[in-house]
Amino acid sequence: MEKKLQELKTRLLEINDLNNAAALLSWDQSTYMPPGGAEARGRQMATLGKLAQEKMVDPAVGKLLDELRPYEEGLPYDSDDASLIRVARRTFEQAVNIPPSFVAEFTNHNALSYQAWTEARPANDFNRVRPMLEKTLDYSRQMAEYFPGYGHIADPLINFTDYGMKASDVSAIFAQLRKELVPIVKAITSQEPADDSCLRQFYPQDKQLEFGLKVIKKYGYDFNRGRQDLTHHPFMTKFSLGDIRITTRVHETDLGDALFSTLHESGHAMYEMGINMAYEGTPLANGTSSGVHESQSRLWENIVGRSRGFWDHFYPDLQATFPDQLGKVSLDTFYRAINGVRKSLIRTDADEVTYNLHVMLRFDLEMQMLDGSLSIRDLPEAWQERYENDLGIAAPDNRDGVLQDVHWYAFTIGGVFQGYTLGNILSGLYYQAALKAHPEIPAEINHGKFDTLHNWLRTNLYQHGSKFTAAELTERVTGGPLRIEPYIQYLKTKYGELYKLD
Amino acid sequence: MEKKLQELKTRLLEINDLNNAAALLSWDQSTYMPPGGAEARGRQMATLGKLAQEKMVDPAVGKLLDELRPYEEGLPYDSDDASLIRVARRTFEQAVNIPPSFVAEFTNHNALSYQAWTEARPANDFNRVRPMLEKTLDYSRQMAEYFPGYGHIADPLINFTDYGMKASDVSAIFAQLRKELVPIVKAITSQEPADDSCLRQFYPQDKQLEFGLKVIKKYGYDFNRGRQDLTHHPFMTKFSLGDIRITTRVHETDLGDALFSTLHESGHAMYEMGINMAYEGTPLANGTSSGVHESQSRLWENIVGRSRGFWDHFYPDLQATFPDQLGKVSLDTFYRAINGVRKSLIRTDADEVTYNLHVMLRFDLEMQMLDGSLSIRDLPEAWQERYENDLGIAAPDNRDGVLQDVHWYAFTIGGVFQGYTLGNILSGLYYQAALKAHPEIPAEINHGKFDTLHNWLRTNLYQHGSKFTAAELTERVTGGPLRIEPYIQYLKTKYGELYKLD
Repeated sequence: MEKKLQELKTRLLEINDLNNAAALLSWDQSTYMPPGGAEARGRQMATLGKLAQEKMVDPAVGKLLDELRPYEEGLPYDSDDASLIRVARRTFEQAVNIPPSFVAEFTNHNALSYQAWTEARPANDFNRVRPMLEKTLDYSRQMAEYFPGYGHIADPLINFTDYGMKASDVSAIFAQLRKELVPIVKAITSQEPADDSCLRQFYPQDKQLEFGLKVIKKYGYDFNRGRQDLTHHPFMTKFSLGDIRITTRVHETDLGDALFSTLHESGHAMYEMGINMAYEGTPLANGTSSGVHESQSRLWENIVGRSRGFWDHFYPDLQATFPDQLGKVSLDTFYRAINGVRKSLIRTDADEVTYNLHVMLRFDLEMQMLDGSLSIRDLPEAWQERYENDLGIAAPDNRDGVLQDVHWYAFTIGGVFQGYTLGNILSGLYYQAALKAHPEIPAEINHGKFDTLHNWLRTNLYQHGSKFTAAELTERVTGGPLRIEPYIQYLKTKYGELYKLD
Repeated sequence: MEKKLQELKTRLLEINDLNNAAALLSWDQSTYMPPGGAEARGRQMATLGKLAQEKMVDPAVGKLLDELRPYEEGLPYDSDDASLIRVARRTFEQAVNIPPSFVAEFTNHNALSYQAWTEARPANDFNRVRPMLEKTLDYSRQMAEYFPGYGHIADPLINFTDYGMKASDVSAIFAQLRKELVPIVKAITSQEPADDSCLRQFYPQDKQLEFGLKVIKKYGYDFNRGRQDLTHHPFMTKFSLGDIRITTRVHETDLGDALFSTLHESGHAMYEMGINMAYEGTPLANGTSSGVHESQSRLWENIVGRSRGFWDHFYPDLQATFPDQLGKVSLDTFYRAINGVRKSLIRTDADEVTYNLHVMLRFDLEMQMLDGSLSIRDLPEAWQERYENDLGIAAPDNRDGVLQDVHWYAFTIGGVFQGYTLGNILSGLYYQAALKAHPEIPAEINHGKFDTLHNWLRTNLYQHGSKFTAAELTERVTGGPLRIEPYIQYLKTKYGELYKLD
């Protein structure tokens, strides 16, 4: 049995290495690759993806998993070996339904589509990517069709990222959340918006980057196992548990963009960096779901990084970094500026309160595209309509409309956006649990110390990697299922105070 | 037959993609990878290497090559299809003798050894890498043993890089060359050395890099298909015919290091960039040998980039870039400085005349290590002895002695160094042929124009990729075999003038 487990691990390691090599090819495509490399790069990533897929669906893997079942069942559910076999089986079952040739085609398509998007967005040219996006929708639907028996066609896609959630679950939670959020947004946006002109001054790129790096070093991001580079769209990527990188972008007339995206991506990265090193090269060495991942990026970006206590500590340092820009701006003004709530166009720039409206709108459009009630041709208009309806504003062009996010141009349509709002909800839930265990956390943050919080997260969430599903983790940490109340309570307390709501 | 050829191409493309992905992993290891990534990176490159090797030695490839033989024999020798099959067969036959598990082990060892070298060299700590180097020698000998029937144990290793050359051929040519070089070196170094203090001033990194990039842009290095990054040791690497990168290093108190390494690597890169794009993804899409490759790096670095005519054009621009450092330095002084001949310690810094003494010394040490007459333990001392003997100087430490070059710490021992001097010889031979066809080339270089030379090289050498062996190319271009006379003539003319020799 020992030998069979070793054989399974060896096979999974090879698959892991192929996938991590593909991840590096993708990182390079977004950071340093010259344009001439695009065509071959798409093909190369497709080749690696196809080989990994072929090796994953090898019947020998299925046979090993079957043979290991009695061994697994004799072990405690949360033992490393049982968990590895269980998660490998889940991955195998998800993979075995998708033909390798489909994976190769789709991967190749995604690379070309991404490249086209990097050109179409600055050119505000939706038509340039429209035929590609139509193919992406076909591919996404086809992908779901490989998993018959779903309730909604999005369910199999959501299963890839937030295993165990169904479109109907998501819709129900989003309905609850929308009901709570709408009155808060309404109450805040009926007031005069916060003055955030202090953030719109000229902030040189190098100093912005330096300050962001200083903060995440204090958070505990390990630069011995990571680095930051510049890309169009910030992301975190991992090539092993020893090499977990983040990227950002800088707007020299917007202090918040690089800083908060850095804090955000560092949260993703610290989750992965906290995984038990013994899991390196196994399917356990990944964050467990899109929602849990996003809970950590949002926790470090917002709950910590936009809190009053955090800036009590860091603002003098920020002022010293930018004396001309912030020397005469009070902490109160700055704190209100970075927490300004407004009806805005760009999801990644949106404040904590309206952010979920951006996400839920995308989720709804995805559901409609997938179930056939919305065509790609009509997508730009539907996008605009939903923005006017949900946020009361319309983008002047597609650049800041339907072209704003990379996701649909580089991945599937469906299965991605829900994780952002699930993550927000979970960030509130987990932070509440951390405070219950360690009421001293806010005082520590106030002194620029993050060890107690980071250690609690590592112990209770990060170290487990994919051992537990999101639902299991949540149950372990909070004693109950996913619920929105702590997140809503967090928003009400913070923004009630800021905007003097009842 | 059409179908069988297509199947062969598909299989070779997959192998090519795996190898190119491994090349990117290696580039990243040398440029941007955080230290924590080293261990997994070694494993990942080993996995890719092993998969590529497995796919190369698949009996189905051998069967296809056999089945395609009649088709190949019915085609002209220099047709694309016949050449592709011929070169694929050569690669297959070289690969099929080496067990995939050996390749994986060796690749993994090389990654760890390279990482150790990057730490051992600055620490001047040969003992840190000695056990690894001993393993490298074992691996190198084992590699050769997979090809029994050799004359010298180095022959199979030389075949990988300079196909068709034997250790005895190389030794014979090197003996001729040494006989010619020794009196030249003696005559020059008996004179007062050229004053190169103008190069040893402070030259800021960014301006150095900028100037180098400006020159290679004029050469015709295509930045749409390439870029330059910083590494410990300069190199050229290729991920496809659309993505051919170079690296350099900068010493701010040595103007020559980054500049001439940039010109050097651009020569390697332009060779690859000039390959017929129709060969992308096939075994034809590579330079044909180490010697031919080096002939191009040395041609662009030395014959062009250190010529009087080149600097007639570029020196005013260099002076304008560094007015404080060079404003009052005459072109004559500068030209003598960059062509100073001296007995020196560092191969990559060595002048054209002594350079080959550095290489031939390494070649001899390799031959001795491989045939067992020199142990790794005795290598540092043997290195010092040879330097004292051949160049009349000794390194103060191992950092600038046996630890100076990356090669033994990242590749095989044997099969690499000979290419450098073969390249020098070929650079003279090919440049003479270019001048015969286009006597206007020196006048064009004098005006900062390189099109005629670059086009001639593209047409006569670059476009063919690996279609012809080095010997075949040389025969096509010069009507005869490799000979040292044009190179010696070039050195005698240039340095005769500079040092007023008879």
